[in-house]
Amino acid sequence: MTSVEEVHAAVEAADRVWQDGFDPVGVLRAIADRLETADLLGVAERETRLPASRLRGELTRTTFQLRLFAELVETGAHLGVRIDRADPDWPMGAPRPDLRRVLQPVGPVVVFPAGNFPFAFGVAGGDTASALAAGCPVVVKAHPGYPELSDLTGELVRDLGVVTVVHGEEAGRAALTHPLVKAGAFTGSVRGGRALFDLAAGRPEPIPFYGELGSVNPVFVARDAAGSRARRIAEEAVASFTTGAGQLCTKPGLLLVPEGCAIPQELASLELPVAPMLSERISEGYRDAVASVPGDGVTELVVGDGPVVLLTDLRRVLGDFEAFTRECFGPFLLVVTYAEDAEVVEFARRLEGQLTATVIADEPSGWVEELVRVLARRAGRLLWNQWPTGVSVTHAQHHGGPWPATTAAGSTSVGTAAVERFLRPVAYQNFPSDLLPGVLRDDTRAPALVDGRFTEGALTMRW
Amino acid sequence: MTSVEEVHAAVEAADRVWQDGFDPVGVLRAIADRLETADLLGVAERETRLPASRLRGELTRTTFQLRLFAELVETGAHLGVRIDRADPDWPMGAPRPDLRRVLQPVGPVVVFPAGNFPFAFGVAGGDTASALAAGCPVVVKAHPGYPELSDLTGELVRDLGVVTVVHGEEAGRAALTHPLVKAGAFTGSVRGGRALFDLAAGRPEPIPFYGELGSVNPVFVARDAAGSRARRIAEEAVASFTTGAGQLCTKPGLLLVPEGCAIPQELASLELPVAPMLSERISEGYRDAVASVPGDGVTELVVGDGPVVLLTDLRRVLGDFEAFTRECFGPFLLVVTYAEDAEVVEFARRLEGQLTATVIADEPSGWVEELVRVLARRAGRLLWNQWPTGVSVTHAQHHGGPWPATTAAGSTSVGTAAVERFLRPVAYQNFPSDLLPGVLRDDTRAPALVDGRFTEGALTMRW
Repeated sequence: MTSVEEVHAAVEAADRVWQDGFDPVGVLRAIADRLETADLLGVAERETRLPASRLRGELTRTTFQLRLFAELVETGAHLGVRIDRADPDWPMGAPRPDLRRVLQPVGPVVVFPAGNFPFAFGVAGGDTASALAAGCPVVVKAHPGYPELSDLTGELVRDLGVVTVVHGEEAGRAALTHPLVKAGAFTGSVRGGRALFDLAAGRPEPIPFYGELGSVNPVFVARDAAGSRARRIAEEAVASFTTGAGQLCTKPGLLLVPEGCAIPQELASLELPVAPMLSERISEGYRDAVASVPGDGVTELVVGDGPVVLLTDLRRVLGDFEAFTRECFGPFLLVVTYAEDAEVVEFARRLEGQLTATVIADEPSGWVEELVRVLARRAGRLLWNQWPTGVSVTHAQHHGGPWPATTAAGSTSVGTAAVERFLRPVAYQNFPSDLLPGVLRDDTRAPALVDGRFTEGALTMRW
Repeated sequence: MTSVEEVHAAVEAADRVWQDGFDPVGVLRAIADRLETADLLGVAERETRLPASRLRGELTRTTFQLRLFAELVETGAHLGVRIDRADPDWPMGAPRPDLRRVLQPVGPVVVFPAGNFPFAFGVAGGDTASALAAGCPVVVKAHPGYPELSDLTGELVRDLGVVTVVHGEEAGRAALTHPLVKAGAFTGSVRGGRALFDLAAGRPEPIPFYGELGSVNPVFVARDAAGSRARRIAEEAVASFTTGAGQLCTKPGLLLVPEGCAIPQELASLELPVAPMLSERISEGYRDAVASVPGDGVTELVVGDGPVVLLTDLRRVLGDFEAFTRECFGPFLLVVTYAEDAEVVEFARRLEGQLTATVIADEPSGWVEELVRVLARRAGRLLWNQWPTGVSVTHAQHHGGPWPATTAAGSTSVGTAAVERFLRPVAYQNFPSDLLPGVLRDDTRAPALVDGRFTEGALTMRW
């Protein structure tokens, strides 16, 4: 475990690096290159029990993400440049001064990686990549599920001077409460995330804490689709909820289907893959969570050591809402039959914040439209005839949602918008060009809103 | 005082309005029109003791702000539209689905207006305008300094159904802790803002709380300017720190000048305007704050009932930093002489978060460049040869800063970017065009990042 003194030294070093500045593009690309050439898969496999194929895909995603963020930084598009030139006739009642706004790094960031993504949300994963892209050095509190991989990754990038790995809960708390740390990022349980959020908010100087916590990711199957392709929906549901042994934050945990459709029987007839979970502790937590689902009015469709599928009806769920809509981390699916469309909308209205909500339907209908509108107020990502697992890293991606999906509904932890979490605006008023940051000068090539109008420079950003 | 039951009813009504949606453009323009035709200046003058001319200017700013936000909403530029069309060859290792992201209103917002801006940060002021622009109905907890003006403003817009005014501290707490409220906005003291921030962060579902708290707004005068225009700098300093009886969040409270320059004498020779403060309680607080400045090593340049100017040197300040850099709300200015440039940079490094920091200089020099770089990490807005009071409402404005200037360094409470505080992203994956919000369809006219490239549509946004 890292001592508190060592943590403080790491934070103070990170603060100096932030003050001096570093080249995010070079750093991001160097990390990607090194991850590709290093041989980390064996250690990752041993520590997490995840299959090599899955880890290989995750590594591809991780290096792609680092390079995509590097490209973003090269364009300056993440800096949100706005330039208002002086205007003596500004109708506010006073002349408008020359004002130029740019986003700047907030300072050192503490990252708490996820147990289920040793690469994509590990030491050099999404939170670290987005903090570095913003220009913020990172102190990573290693996940206890893969300490050796974390150290190896830390070693791999050590000489770049922007990432330090520490170990232990006390070290994590010491980092998050250090006055020089300016933001935290976390992926994990609601309980763990809440404790760290409270720590961040309770500091003498409160700081933002971006926690991606829990979600049951409900899937709503409309009557038409349930009638026309029950078998296929059952197969897709299984593929989605058992991926990675169900250890994904976007795992669908609830499947609402119309009463009398064939989906439950189809699910019961399928052979479900059994895979080891990340650790014995996670397996126990999974078994406990499954055991805590109320038994009354509930039928077992699939039981056993691995995936579990239970069946109940919507009235039962509405009568014991909290117990049936709790996240169960692992390959668990609760199938819920509904009789009335209106009840489904009522159910959607009562949902807590979700990372995702999915609608499977053949054709839009008035009811589906209403459902989508309600879900848009509850979830961060809505899907139509696709499944929520497999979160693409893109510009338009949003991986977030209202509490308890995250601690900060306005932020995403996947996609290029994730960089915004670690930036804050600074406006320069009436400055001579020489003293302005380069991107704020008249000849800026960054996408910019100039006098309320996007400049041609904006058109230079592309991937 | 409004009862807790009445507050709950107001929040529930706001929630229904949010669910149903409303037309922000129509609402913002209607409020502006009505503020212009209503006769509210007399009440405002009586309740706040601010002069009619100042209030008239503030009203102009307030209606301008409402209309500027309406224009913004018409363009869709505040919606941060991003469209990534499906791409089977996306190099992440898996095909990219069609993903379309748009910002949507977070839900009902509670606004706590400022005592010193009965219009611009009042019931229909900046926080209310930006929440409405986002599509969020507002419950305003009236400032106790102008209850009648607050009620009259509330009455004026009541039939629009999007703003409710409540009174009393208990009512404010009841609103902020109501489960259906999704954000809070506040302008006021560090102590008051911290208490409300803690309430918002401590809820079962924590919500963002945007508090604009305190700032001493240091002004740094370089040797060249102090030598070439001491008289003018003294006059400008007086105009800035006595505006509105010094009751502005951007009032310069610290003026650093080179040892031996004429600025202190010039300040002592000027006649300073005396104006009533907002209330007897504010006057008392001002007198207490002035009295709490250490006396040892401090000279009185101007004393009396109104403005107070004290003089000390930088070594004295560095030796008792906290006591000398505390905000003093009112017409107070501490002049600090410096001997060494390096000490000034050291002072800047030790500063807490500020709304503004100002440099007065004739020519950029290496020292000034270093100072500006340090100040950019401490303040939200930097000024060059202008004064921090008078905050222009524009696109590039940033009125915010690291704690304790605000509770959320990434947000602004002035300028069109203020709308972003009350929006959260929702991504639609693989949706048929008919089910998408209009701004996310292929023919969107909103500024949009399409496949990582700004569309021509982006060029249609202008003011």
